[in-house]
Formats: sequence, structure tokens, C-alpha cells
Amino acid sequence: MKSHNPMKKHFQVIAFDADDTLWINETYFRASENAFCQLMADFMEPSLVQRVLFRTEVRNMALYGYGVKAFILSMMETALEISQNKLSGELMAQILTLGKEQLNKEVMLLEGVEKVLQQLEMAGQKVVVVTKGDLLDQERKLHKSGLDRYFHHVEIVSEKHEDNYLRLTEHLGVKPADFLMIGNSLKSDVLPVLNIGGHAVYIPFHETWEFEKTEQKVEHPHYAELEKVSDLINWLGL
Amino acid sequence: MKSHNPMKKHFQVIAFDADDTLWINETYFRASENAFCQLMADFMEPSLVQRVLFRTEVRNMALYGYGVKAFILSMMETALEISQNKLSGELMAQILTLGKEQLNKEVMLLEGVEKVLQQLEMAGQKVVVVTKGDLLDQERKLHKSGLDRYFHHVEIVSEKHEDNYLRLTEHLGVKPADFLMIGNSLKSDVLPVLNIGGHAVYIPFHETWEFEKTEQKVEHPHYAELEKVSDLINWLGL
Repeated sequence: MKSHNPMKKHFQVIAFDADDTLWINETYFRASENAFCQLMADFMEPSLVQRVLFRTEVRNMALYGYGVKAFILSMMETALEISQNKLSGELMAQILTLGKEQLNKEVMLLEGVEKVLQQLEMAGQKVVVVTKGDLLDQERKLHKSGLDRYFHHVEIVSEKHEDNYLRLTEHLGVKPADFLMIGNSLKSDVLPVLNIGGHAVYIPFHETWEFEKTEQKVEHPHYAELEKVSDLINWLGL
Repeated sequence: MKSHNPMKKHFQVIAFDADDTLWINETYFRASENAFCQLMADFMEPSLVQRVLFRTEVRNMALYGYGVKAFILSMMETALEISQNKLSGELMAQILTLGKEQLNKEVMLLEGVEKVLQQLEMAGQKVVVVTKGDLLDQERKLHKSGLDRYFHHVEIVSEKHEDNYLRLTEHLGVKPADFLMIGNSLKSDVLPVLNIGGHAVYIPFHETWEFEKTEQKVEHPHYAELEKVSDLINWLGL
């Protein structure tokens, strides 16, 4: 019989971010980006190509949103800009192929993820996913991951702002104070959740897209940083 | 005082499709497609370009899904295929511009839509939206439409299959028999809903994308076809 743990934390709902929290994502974006910068090397030095691409992605964010399709479109636009429309059809076709290959990538779970989900399931914990990005692509990754069965609910949002989290907690019938979000982005997974009165655990991934970076240091009674997802079980006191 | 109408139909939830049911959509796709076929006229006869584009879209459907970003990517792929990679950078840039222009189009409500939503609101009817396509683009259109306030819930799905409708009715806490779906696609808005025991009203739009066409004739006690959205009020007996 398991003894009562006085340090046990209880949350009605625990929500996981998906990309770079459950599975590898940024690594694939960086690989496509590097391949793209190499493809463009005849026109511009690769590190500069990367700067122009980032600027294009930020400029297109409001129109295209997150996800691989948006990324392909921004690579195309960058390529045309950098080459002053001198891009060959072969190069454009290679950019399209980069995108398709990325969409078809395997889903590689981060270490310890499945075990943690199993332990939460055994503890009777309600667990959900909150991810932003492309609807179809995120659904496909979740399906490929084999993790679907652990999640009571999957929420795919166009942005992770405070109002999205508020709507989600309302929808799940949970008070923010009983809601814990776990993710690798301070900007998307931590700060907006703390701002609505929720709890957040930050588990950094070794790569972070510049757009998700924030200078802000977080100090908050509802906040913790863990090194890896498997540390969660101890932290929860399970 | 309004007298009791013995013909009054009652549904716990009435769901509207969005594209070509609440607002014009297909017209914009057809306009971009025509512009694209003209851009490609030096390589191939426009009506043939259209055939190749459709084939490309269908081939990419599982990977890209619905929506404008998928459409732009398929146009680019078609252009490269048709030109055997001899496409000029100027033409590629024009294709990207076609896509951006389409994403920035105004939202034009179909005639009578707002009045019907007002009447349903006055009748205390719970109304939701069920639409497929790109998350961000559909949210943006809903916001631009000014109709957000009429909807209790907005569901954006990657596909409109039976399991999506079942999940939605469960989520809304409504039995399929108390659920009415209204839309312009027999394939997406009518047949799957009838198959799970729901009710469906078909309001054809004058343009239908080939992918949404079905040869099937519908005869079902839970089915009706109306000419325009404003006929709904009479049909409901309100």
C-alpha cells in the first residue's frame, strides 16, 4: 500500500504542450532550415539566409500562423526575395520537397514521456494536450505518437494566449487554480497560464525557435522549472 | 403574442457550416484558380491546368488538408510540374501573391444569414459553427464576419467525418437526434450527420468544389433541402 505523501500536489487537470514537450519538433524545423540555407548558398551566405527567413516568418505570422505549411510558404518567399526572382524551378521544387519530408517525419517521443503518462493514468489524473499549429499536422502527429489514449481532451489552438487558456479551462470545467500546464515555452506555455491564475511547469528543450524566446525571468509561487519530463512524478509527489 | 405553431421543430443544438453557408468562399477559390490557370497559359491550355491542379490537390489532401495554404502549395507544385521546372521566379511570386490576396479577402455574408441568426437568438436557440479547414484562417473569417457573438461554440475540424460529429455532439452534451446540421455540402454536412442519427438541412451554394461533389441522392426522414438560408425560419416553424 502506498503511504500518504504530504508533499503531494493535486491538480484537477494537467495539460501538456506537444511539440518539444512530448516529442521532437524544433529539431526538424532546424534541419529543414539548415537544408534551405544550404540550397540558397549561391545567392547569400547561409547565416544571412536564416536571418531573412526569420524576418519573413515573423512578417507572415499574422497571415499564415504556425506550422509546417506556413514555414514552407515563408521559405519560398524568402528564396524569391534573396534570389531577386532568379530562383530556378529545380530549387523551388526542392523547397516543396523539404516541406513534404518534414510533414512525413516520424514522431520521436522525448525520453520518459510515455512512462510519465502511464504513471499519471494509474494515479487517475485527468490529462489533456494543448498545442498550437496546424490542425491536421498536430492530429497526425498525435496519432503517430500512439499517445492519443492517454488524453481526455486535445485542444489545438491558433495561439496560446490568456484568452485561449481561459476558454479551455472553462470548457474543461476547471478553475485556473486547479490547472497545471507543462511545456517548453515560457512565452506560450508558462506566462499566459500564470497570468490567468493557473500553474505552470517549464521543461526546457535544447532548441528553442527564436520567435518563442523571451528574456523574462519567471519567479512565481505557481511556477517550477524541471530538467526533464520524468522529474514530474517526483515533483507532483506521486 | 405569438401563437403556438404545431409545425414547430425543436433541436437542442443547430450547427452551421461556415464556408458557402454563412459566407462566400468557393467563389474566391475559383477566382484564384482561374487567375492561376491564366498565369500558366503559356505552358498549357487553362482547362487542362485546372485538371492537373485538381489532381495535385487530391493527391496532397492527406498531407496538407483543406484551406488556402494547402491550395497555394498545390498551385506551386502544379506550376512546377506543368512547366517542367521552367517556371520563372516572377510567376512563382505571383502564385504566392494570389494566395496572400485570397487570405486577405473580405468576408461577404450570404444573404439573410445575419437575420436568421438574430431570429434564432431571439428564439433562445443554441447555435454553433462546425467548419473544416485551416484553424487560423477560419478563426479570422469568423472574427471578420462579425458573427462570433451568435455562436455558443465554434468547432474547427480537419475533416467532417462521422466520428468528428459524434465527438462534437458528445462534447456539447446533445444526442444526435436533437442535433441539426446546416450546410452546402452533402458529403461533409449532410451524409455523415444522417449516418450518426442526426438531422441535416442542405442549402446548395451555386458553386461546389469538385472534391465535395457526390452523386448520391438523399432521401431520409431527417433530411431537407432548402433554397436559401432565410427559408430556415419557416422550415423550423419559428
